[in-house]
Amino acid sequence: MNTILIGIAGGTGSGKTTLTDHLARRFGADISVVHHDNYYKRQERPFEERCRQNYDHPDAFDTDLMIADLKKLKAGQTIHCPVYDYSIHNRTDETVEVRPTKVVLVEGILIFQNKALRDLLDIKIFVETDADVRILRRALRDVEERGRSLESVVNQYLTTVKPMHEQFVEPTRKYADIIVLEGGHNLVALDMIMQRIANHIAQN
Amino acid sequence: MNTILIGIAGGTGSGKTTLTDHLARRFGADISVVHHDNYYKRQERPFEERCRQNYDHPDAFDTDLMIADLKKLKAGQTIHCPVYDYSIHNRTDETVEVRPTKVVLVEGILIFQNKALRDLLDIKIFVETDADVRILRRALRDVEERGRSLESVVNQYLTTVKPMHEQFVEPTRKYADIIVLEGGHNLVALDMIMQRIANHIAQN
Repeated sequence: MNTILIGIAGGTGSGKTTLTDHLARRFGADISVVHHDNYYKRQERPFEERCRQNYDHPDAFDTDLMIADLKKLKAGQTIHCPVYDYSIHNRTDETVEVRPTKVVLVEGILIFQNKALRDLLDIKIFVETDADVRILRRALRDVEERGRSLESVVNQYLTTVKPMHEQFVEPTRKYADIIVLEGGHNLVALDMIMQRIANHIAQN
Repeated sequence: MNTILIGIAGGTGSGKTTLTDHLARRFGADISVVHHDNYYKRQERPFEERCRQNYDHPDAFDTDLMIADLKKLKAGQTIHCPVYDYSIHNRTDETVEVRPTKVVLVEGILIFQNKALRDLLDIKIFVETDADVRILRRALRDVEERGRSLESVVNQYLTTVKPMHEQFVEPTRKYADIIVLEGGHNLVALDMIMQRIANHIAQN
């Protein structure tokens, strides 16, 4: 099997998950998805300390494990992907089996930051959305879906999310092959990416 | 014939012409190219005054004529595209026959600036390259290919090209469906655009 890895990066709330979900739904069994978030490092510290962890810094991720897993998928091997639980701020004991497919989507804010990971990706897509739109989406998601207070969202955004975005995420847009504005809501770009994937699946 | 119009915009020296040329060469008779530069307005003024014209302002172009021509191409009609001569800074009396094709590339720095033109485009691509790289490419082109002095290039860049870019070109990147970094040298993006075009040609 000839597997290509497609990286989808972009800041929080940029629409990269929406884009990833659209693609995953469209191609079903021919595509698999690996989220960098599932490779947050396991933490042995108490819950209160885990809450204060900086989750937007590259060191928060076990990127080496993800790279090893992606190389396995590319070599046609099944992996057992770790599962992260946002409510306890920690990796769970579960894993999810991911079988090798012709196309693997790799999603995360920092996937272009690590050179070894970046070099594994055949197509690099950066989803770009204005920062004000991004924080509004994030606030809605964290307050409505994850039960956090707006105040905690604002604090986390201003103390870690925004500075980490400027330091680590934004500079990696230059590594992208294409930049998609507005992510999953951009139907022309979605169509172009889908045709690229469909051609790869049909020809391999 | 089902014709799609693909707009390729971006600042001077961004690589949009290289990208356009790659696509035109690859698809030959199935593709035609319309350059906004060929629609610079005819000027009845003396050469010295034409030299001082601001060629980076939307008013320098006869965009209405280009829109009319693009609508004809989309309707399956042949057009006679004006021809601009950079050495005399004016439109010539020649025209070039452009026949309707399944794909029409529309190229220019300001093609996303006019809403009526923008709305005609089925796919909008903005080629983005750092400003320092762009001016170096432009300087090489204007000095080596167009016989201008480096001093005149620098003067024109600082007095009109750069301010017009910031006022009129840069703000239109937000209308793009995809942003391509480095234009014709970006092989992954080029491949994706080529596959999109090839699919359209094969299916129509």
